[in-house]
Amino acid sequence: MATEIRKKLLRMFTETEDDFLSGQKISEELGCSRTAVWKHIEDLRQEGFELEAVRRKGYRIKKIPDKISHNEITLGLKTTSLGRQVHFKESVTSTQKIAHQLAYDGVPEGTLVVSEEQTTGRGRLNRSWHSPKYTGVWMSLILRPNLPPAKAPQLTLLTAVAITQAIEEVTGLRPDIKWPNDILINKKKAVGILTEMQAEADKINSVIIGMGINVNHQIDHFPKELHSIATSLSIELGKTVNRAELIQSILLHLENLYERYLQHGFYPIKLLWESYAISIGKRIIARTITGTLEGLAKGITEDGILMLEDDQNCIHYIHSADIQIGND
Amino acid sequence: MATEIRKKLLRMFTETEDDFLSGQKISEELGCSRTAVWKHIEDLRQEGFELEAVRRKGYRIKKIPDKISHNEITLGLKTTSLGRQVHFKESVTSTQKIAHQLAYDGVPEGTLVVSEEQTTGRGRLNRSWHSPKYTGVWMSLILRPNLPPAKAPQLTLLTAVAITQAIEEVTGLRPDIKWPNDILINKKKAVGILTEMQAEADKINSVIIGMGINVNHQIDHFPKELHSIATSLSIELGKTVNRAELIQSILLHLENLYERYLQHGFYPIKLLWESYAISIGKRIIARTITGTLEGLAKGITEDGILMLEDDQNCIHYIHSADIQIGND
Repeated sequence: MATEIRKKLLRMFTETEDDFLSGQKISEELGCSRTAVWKHIEDLRQEGFELEAVRRKGYRIKKIPDKISHNEITLGLKTTSLGRQVHFKESVTSTQKIAHQLAYDGVPEGTLVVSEEQTTGRGRLNRSWHSPKYTGVWMSLILRPNLPPAKAPQLTLLTAVAITQAIEEVTGLRPDIKWPNDILINKKKAVGILTEMQAEADKINSVIIGMGINVNHQIDHFPKELHSIATSLSIELGKTVNRAELIQSILLHLENLYERYLQHGFYPIKLLWESYAISIGKRIIARTITGTLEGLAKGITEDGILMLEDDQNCIHYIHSADIQIGND
Repeated sequence: MATEIRKKLLRMFTETEDDFLSGQKISEELGCSRTAVWKHIEDLRQEGFELEAVRRKGYRIKKIPDKISHNEITLGLKTTSLGRQVHFKESVTSTQKIAHQLAYDGVPEGTLVVSEEQTTGRGRLNRSWHSPKYTGVWMSLILRPNLPPAKAPQLTLLTAVAITQAIEEVTGLRPDIKWPNDILINKKKAVGILTEMQAEADKINSVIIGMGINVNHQIDHFPKELHSIATSLSIELGKTVNRAELIQSILLHLENLYERYLQHGFYPIKLLWESYAISIGKRIIARTITGTLEGLAKGITEDGILMLEDDQNCIHYIHSADIQIGND
């Protein structure tokens, strides 16, 4: 929605006497058709406004979106390094894109890019990630571990553990991790992680971890084709979740795990990861670039590679795939 | 040198009657001291001008720098993919930086960034790379192989073979490769390669191969501290080298090797590489982040990792190090 129309509309809602604003009145004051009014109201819903529509009275704002701000993220943040530098933007193309530029320009480890909205959010393999305004946590964190590029997949798994722990802590929900980078609640996807890096051939310069978390979405925030496979924390919990608190909790869990990882290696992280993983010990179908494999998910290797045992008892090591669990 | 002064000075040289321009006259017309004149003349030398100084007559331009242009690179280029898109700039901070941005924005495989000068050229581990104007080949090539990040070191070795073959073809010189990314002529460094990438945790998005080749440098183009360890093709050859021709030859050799690599894997490249490698079969000292190792360089693995056998006959696998050969 154009900023000017949005402003006008919100001012009308603020100034109306009985909270309600009729479609007729909006249409007159904005000088647009009733269909356009309906479209503007839908846009506000997409931005996180809860709007009630009552016959003969019109529309009423029940709840304005909960916004996050730079202050809210940093105030009370308990980490020593992660998130100590925050780049907060109201709207971006993608937080990954901004973080890539910052990483190249040499910002310190722990720098975080957060936005209320991504217009072209991306997931793995350049798939799009739907990131409507004021509803989710869309952020990218820059790490600078002194590691070879082959270790980067471990950081995806580490991040999955941190987000799972944070969701448990803040909401009490029990998420499951699906290899390599999804977090599910009641078998529906609530979180995606995108680990990217800038590296020399033998040495990581920076890892840019993108996190997309569906927090306060209502079901109609999702495009229709996602209704059966996506969910949000608030849908599963039945109430809204404080996003700044969730961000702080994720950063603290991430920092703790990351320090442990740098000191003791991947093994302790691997055990935690396996304890949350939904696919391990189950029959899975793995779709890779070169073909489809079916068999038992045995676990992950020290490097974070998935081990699949096929029906001839042969172990396959899977670096990259889309996983389908059992008869999902 | 400020552009205005440079322009004025070159105009004076163009307009002088007997080719010679006295220091006195330059000093008067530019309104600067004799020391400043000397400095400006040195700056022209750094830019690739050959200047003769004759007592009582002054300075004379013997040779203006040979410039490369977009046209010269693309005209007669025999590749089908590499270098078909060229971004040519007179001066840049670093071609890697520009190529990184282009790669992120999705330019096609084979896109090449070339510049006449880098003001902040970089080598491995963020070391600076001296790149004076009109003397070298400073370029960055974008590849998009469908490979895991751990394979990237192979592309450094492949590039080293391509540049070595191109130098042989264009100049007749016999360069040696020093693991992992240097090319030496008569034991002095003439070429550096910097392989960087943008990747997802398990999949390369783009490899950005930076190549710095000292071509038409005279010894005083190098900072003093490099005189004993650096050289240029023209110093070793005794005449100047056509840089556009060298670029075209490198791109063609690279394309042939790259196609062979994608079809048949690293093994044929490995054999070629070992045939040019100076360190293999010799005693070397390898300085890594974690310490210094000494022993016999046995060869490289299928993945391009250096194998060093120490005096206890134990094989060490070296991913990243600075190598010193024998008693260099």
